[in-house]
Amino acid sequence: MEHNIFPGLAGVNIDTTEIASINGDKGELIYRGYDIRELSDRISFEEATYLLWNEDLPNEEQLGSFRSSLKSLFAIPEPIYSILRMIPTDTQPIHAIRTAISALASLDNNSEDIDLGNSHRIGTSLLAKFSTITAAFERIRKGLEPIPPDPGLSIAGNFLYMLNGKKPTLAATQTMDVALVLHAEHGCNASTFTARTAASSGTDVYSAITAAIASLKGPLHGGANTAVMNALEAIDKVEHVEGYVLDILSKPHGRVMGFGHRVYRVLDPRAVILKEVARHLAEESGDRKWFVMSLEMEEVMTREMKRQGKQIRPNVDFFSASVYRMLGFPIDMYTPIFAVARISGWMAHLFEQYANNRLMRPRLVYEGPRGRTFKAIDQR
Amino acid sequence: MEHNIFPGLAGVNIDTTEIASINGDKGELIYRGYDIRELSDRISFEEATYLLWNEDLPNEEQLGSFRSSLKSLFAIPEPIYSILRMIPTDTQPIHAIRTAISALASLDNNSEDIDLGNSHRIGTSLLAKFSTITAAFERIRKGLEPIPPDPGLSIAGNFLYMLNGKKPTLAATQTMDVALVLHAEHGCNASTFTARTAASSGTDVYSAITAAIASLKGPLHGGANTAVMNALEAIDKVEHVEGYVLDILSKPHGRVMGFGHRVYRVLDPRAVILKEVARHLAEESGDRKWFVMSLEMEEVMTREMKRQGKQIRPNVDFFSASVYRMLGFPIDMYTPIFAVARISGWMAHLFEQYANNRLMRPRLVYEGPRGRTFKAIDQR
Repeated sequence: MEHNIFPGLAGVNIDTTEIASINGDKGELIYRGYDIRELSDRISFEEATYLLWNEDLPNEEQLGSFRSSLKSLFAIPEPIYSILRMIPTDTQPIHAIRTAISALASLDNNSEDIDLGNSHRIGTSLLAKFSTITAAFERIRKGLEPIPPDPGLSIAGNFLYMLNGKKPTLAATQTMDVALVLHAEHGCNASTFTARTAASSGTDVYSAITAAIASLKGPLHGGANTAVMNALEAIDKVEHVEGYVLDILSKPHGRVMGFGHRVYRVLDPRAVILKEVARHLAEESGDRKWFVMSLEMEEVMTREMKRQGKQIRPNVDFFSASVYRMLGFPIDMYTPIFAVARISGWMAHLFEQYANNRLMRPRLVYEGPRGRTFKAIDQR
Repeated sequence: MEHNIFPGLAGVNIDTTEIASINGDKGELIYRGYDIRELSDRISFEEATYLLWNEDLPNEEQLGSFRSSLKSLFAIPEPIYSILRMIPTDTQPIHAIRTAISALASLDNNSEDIDLGNSHRIGTSLLAKFSTITAAFERIRKGLEPIPPDPGLSIAGNFLYMLNGKKPTLAATQTMDVALVLHAEHGCNASTFTARTAASSGTDVYSAITAAIASLKGPLHGGANTAVMNALEAIDKVEHVEGYVLDILSKPHGRVMGFGHRVYRVLDPRAVILKEVARHLAEESGDRKWFVMSLEMEEVMTREMKRQGKQIRPNVDFFSASVYRMLGFPIDMYTPIFAVARISGWMAHLFEQYANNRLMRPRLVYEGPRGRTFKAIDQR
């Protein structure tokens, strides 16, 4: 019997959505009808999240009310600090953060109700607490005391403040906001799809977000910018970039991290924006090393792909690596920072999934043995 | 533009498998070529797991070696006990267990390697530790000291021992083994699919299993037997069963829990086996209440569904509810017990997924607004 099989579910539509549209042929990303190129440096992460959750950008009153909800929710309960202190400091931070988010479920006495109002409440709480948890573990693993959130700051500002212990500059906060807005949402990517799949059993918001973090962590998804930065560090000098790329491409299945995307056939619009952010940071700080290496890698890859008749361009992870480096983040914090942003999109998708749910249960085609006869253990 | 949409991915094949075959029209479940009806009361949970992971039933030497690996892995590290003690005792136990499994990742200094050898090592460790963690939280929330595992017992025996503090009878251990074998594996169900989806990003085993637990928890999946038992308790008397069922069926979208299955059109073979287990337990213990109520509910539902021209039969959750009740488990432990068993199938699927991986990235069809023009906040 012939079966149609869809590996990786490529091209399979699972539902309709009103959250985001990605046109891979045009290099276009739309949040609720607004082109990401129009939004990225004009709105805060809070506004982007409001848009994704409520179908339109907020007016001043709506934004004020959303910010004041967040303000009251930044603080994390004491048992979460205790749990973070139980986690070995040499682990990947994303393991600690996933564990803390999972534990938050047990501290919420209305964790199970998945109606829209309660899901919004939990989503707002997770949005606020995610950066607090991330910054707290970063401090704890360095042997420092966590810094309590400053309710007067935005999510971007607070995150930088809780990491470093000093109020961030306006420029740093704005750069962080651009990075968060760009990473907030991207359709049915693997972690968002994992959140929707987990949620399809009717599980609670905390569980679904825990599942999303578990998936984001992988090197083919949220771990990709980490891999890009590890590669840049290993190469270390601009004159070694070409040799590095050619060496990888000469191997069977050799893959240069940070290039290509399942959906985009042309340039990922987020990569275009982050490239300019990286250029700006490099010029402002005078530390051009990582940006120059990135440019050279893009150049060599573009040339080599053209030679092979392929169009493989840098993706969002490629430039976010050097942007995060210039903002001073440790490499293993890149994935947690991605999650700080993507919680926004994950929640938007959970609202849709819960509102129109069907249990995800695809099939696997059995190709194993049949009709085996049982034998007692001493006959095997 | 017309789009084919597959809600819940019903009927969509994502890959081939050699683990299990489900024939919903014949009511047939096959583990690696063996019919579940042949296996269920003739093998231990360890043998079932060996079969699922290694393609055939073990001989005595292979089983001995697997059991001795498990023996050395039952104990859980001290920080896991500390984390379990941080979790409020009034939470659903599955939140505590998911958090502990997530934390285990940080205590393994080779958590990230997903090759077959290391995945087997982690899988064996999780298989052994899962029941230890589950029993430990059950004791802690009752204000009792956790009981350390007895390395001389099987998984089924140890689990009962660690819960109750006394060596279980052979009959109880055998019943537990049947329940674990029957729940070990069931194709591409929602939690297994969540594990595979999370793993498709290349994430580690601990993360993928954490995601699976998150999904299992939902009332449409692992939470279903909990819902069945809650219903039986609410009904309380056999003479109230008919009124309860008719009342639910008279409501739009009314759904009697424990009936029907996405895949099985005829009787779920696991339900047939568990019904006999329930009958046996009821007769042996003299407490026939829950079994008699279950029989009556099956009777009324079968009659009513026939009247509507439908064939909706009891599923595995329907009889596992009363079996677990007669074994003395608290209702909110039913889902954790499901997970104690299903870790076996989840791991088998992770081995397949990692060996032949493609990132899961389906699509959502955008039906939201387009071409909106950005306005500054004071213009909104």
